[in-house]
Amino acid sequence: MARTASLSGFPEWLPEERLVELHVLDTLRRVFELHGFSSIETRAVETVGQLLRKGEIDKEVYGLSRLQEDEGEESKAAKGDHHSLALHFDLTVPFARYVVENAGYLAFPFRRYQIQKVWRGERPQEGRAREFTQADIDIVGDGDLPFRYDVEIALVIAEALSALPIPDFRLRINNRKLAEGFYRGIGLTDTAGVLRSIDKLEKIGPAKVAELLKTELGATEDQAQAALSLAGIRTEDTSFVEKVRALGVKDELLEEGLNELEQVIAAAVQRAPGKVVADLSIARGLDYYTGTVVETVLVGHEQLGSICSGGRYDALASKGNRKFPGVGLSIGVTRLVSRILSQDLAQATRSVPTAVLVALNNDGSWGAAQDVAAQLRGRGISTEVAAKAEKFGKQIKFADRRGIPFVWFTDDDGKHQVKDIRSGEQTDADPATWTPSAEDLYVRILKS
Amino acid sequence: MARTASLSGFPEWLPEERLVELHVLDTLRRVFELHGFSSIETRAVETVGQLLRKGEIDKEVYGLSRLQEDEGEESKAAKGDHHSLALHFDLTVPFARYVVENAGYLAFPFRRYQIQKVWRGERPQEGRAREFTQADIDIVGDGDLPFRYDVEIALVIAEALSALPIPDFRLRINNRKLAEGFYRGIGLTDTAGVLRSIDKLEKIGPAKVAELLKTELGATEDQAQAALSLAGIRTEDTSFVEKVRALGVKDELLEEGLNELEQVIAAAVQRAPGKVVADLSIARGLDYYTGTVVETVLVGHEQLGSICSGGRYDALASKGNRKFPGVGLSIGVTRLVSRILSQDLAQATRSVPTAVLVALNNDGSWGAAQDVAAQLRGRGISTEVAAKAEKFGKQIKFADRRGIPFVWFTDDDGKHQVKDIRSGEQTDADPATWTPSAEDLYVRILKS
Repeated sequence: MARTASLSGFPEWLPEERLVELHVLDTLRRVFELHGFSSIETRAVETVGQLLRKGEIDKEVYGLSRLQEDEGEESKAAKGDHHSLALHFDLTVPFARYVVENAGYLAFPFRRYQIQKVWRGERPQEGRAREFTQADIDIVGDGDLPFRYDVEIALVIAEALSALPIPDFRLRINNRKLAEGFYRGIGLTDTAGVLRSIDKLEKIGPAKVAELLKTELGATEDQAQAALSLAGIRTEDTSFVEKVRALGVKDELLEEGLNELEQVIAAAVQRAPGKVVADLSIARGLDYYTGTVVETVLVGHEQLGSICSGGRYDALASKGNRKFPGVGLSIGVTRLVSRILSQDLAQATRSVPTAVLVALNNDGSWGAAQDVAAQLRGRGISTEVAAKAEKFGKQIKFADRRGIPFVWFTDDDGKHQVKDIRSGEQTDADPATWTPSAEDLYVRILKS
Repeated sequence: MARTASLSGFPEWLPEERLVELHVLDTLRRVFELHGFSSIETRAVETVGQLLRKGEIDKEVYGLSRLQEDEGEESKAAKGDHHSLALHFDLTVPFARYVVENAGYLAFPFRRYQIQKVWRGERPQEGRAREFTQADIDIVGDGDLPFRYDVEIALVIAEALSALPIPDFRLRINNRKLAEGFYRGIGLTDTAGVLRSIDKLEKIGPAKVAELLKTELGATEDQAQAALSLAGIRTEDTSFVEKVRALGVKDELLEEGLNELEQVIAAAVQRAPGKVVADLSIARGLDYYTGTVVETVLVGHEQLGSICSGGRYDALASKGNRKFPGVGLSIGVTRLVSRILSQDLAQATRSVPTAVLVALNNDGSWGAAQDVAAQLRGRGISTEVAAKAEKFGKQIKFADRRGIPFVWFTDDDGKHQVKDIRSGEQTDADPATWTPSAEDLYVRILKS
């Protein structure tokens, strides 16, 4: 399985690997549509100006230029001119642009899923590719968006991930209002700065984070320890509320955040038991989150990084005075599929869609074989017809090599038989009625 | 419907338009898989060297460069260095590369479908975008590939196109061997040059083509007229064979081509009646075709250009002495979908996947509403839950605005009712058993 991509950071799957990816994509789509999310796609390119609105990520963007364009255009692209084009690096920024552009045509709250490739020119490593597929769901309101959608979107994602052939997972959820209110309550006013430091907790440890808070943000030892105490809280139920209150900090925004996170966790305890934890160390680097923030780990694969992240953003999209607050989560499909494949966590029951190969009795029987195939396909049975009237043994070997479980024979008298080449069992069959078992009808993906 | 793309040449669909595109993509996938084609995707980028192997198309390629890369890299990309990266402009060249790289892992003849976006920096116009989706099927052999696959692939495409919500279409099929053999037989040795001139027939007319043949290729008046006579042959059955023979030209390659094209047309007359014509004016510009060549027109929309093209290529992919001949066809999905949408040829029965909105009786009933929704989803019914306990009239209006046909009510005593908001009919219902009619269960796409 684990071949090396011919271009580092740009993985490609073999057909039987692609079946696993297709299963993941189909499953996500089914769950998203069951919950009323509409599919959209945005173009792969944005203007550089649009992409850089968010700042910080410009290093990783792939700019575009036509190989044969004239000098003027070329230098424009090379300089990173804001009107030149670049590949999108996520689906949230393009989605925000799409909502603003099409606001007159959309019914709000607008629920959409979007499954597309994105590109980042980062150094490739395990779990980090330069081209990868994300599957996003977002709900966006016109003016306001009830908090309940934060609860709902976490539940939809828990249901979607539960339907995938992956190990157990945990959504780790926090709330920016809670954290920012707390920092404010202990007298740290550069709340974004504190969040950035706390975000490094897993990487550099509490002692160094305390150091950062003191040297870079002017925190006292007590303030630093209080911030770390908050980040140390992690509960599988709503008991985090008491634990935060026990720290003795009073702030309005903190209360609002506590109340919001409590709603999410309470619903999750009931509707997605064991899948969600309140984890007050979660910060999320990007600036546009304003409330709920989520990261997700695969249990036993924590070093893979987050496989699903996102949160509430109240100010990402606006059109004049009109604001479009949203909440969304993004699943790292390529990261998940790479892990499934590299650790053989699931496999396809066969390597091709084909269930039946119709063998040729003689070279003139190709037309009759096509008739049989058409009858089988009419009942949803994937069928191929042999191209050459080789010896039956050779035609069976051909099916075996391609992973096709059944071979169909029609003799000169028009008598039909079908052979299960795995068991060797051969039985009479009628092309108008024969069907393989449900297990053999379609390719299935089974967890190891 | 017909909004303008915010970036010329990069169309984006509204959610209800995307439903039409999804239907087209799902239909193609279903037909391809029924015929045993495996899905693959290749990365969006190729090295410039790989893309330019084919020559002629370099003007239209989008090169990539990281916006913040160092000087060395930047100038490499700007110069179109062969190792720098560019977006693929079709799926055939990447597929050939994939086959060569993965030959050791594939079972031949390898049948694959590939549905992906491609990019060309051309001037956008009706039917021609800069970013568009292609749906390709190809069958590739190891060493040789029986001609029968040329017949099969035309039939699969005719079946796939017949399943789409589009106007009637015609596959116009020719054979390069037939044409080249004929030109050789009349003494014109630069057969590629003649093909290039004949390719301009529809654009510039026969008189100018004759002129080109005489001035650029040194043809005599008789030779030019013979080439034009061949290109004028167009039959819905195999009678083209007689008509070619009547021109009195003898050549071995011509005979081989006649025999091949006859096989394709004979099978099509029987299995896809009315969908295929032998059209000896079809040349296809690209050099890599070596036998069967195909273009496809939508009847009544001829000016749209070909909606499905391709053919046999015997030498596109090779690895040392090992050759991988192939035959394939490519459907222009974006071109088709743009036409369906701009001329309103088909519509979705509703604009969202959602069939049912579960209304809230009071703010505390959100949990109970989620329970109802979960039961409905368990039977495949796409369901949303209202976020706010507004007046029922407002919740019904919400469903109406989103295009959701049913609203579910549960009163304080736990009595359930469902209302079809189109007819106003409201009936008792059990969340454990109620199901909408098959017509309302999923979004359907209907031809106008």
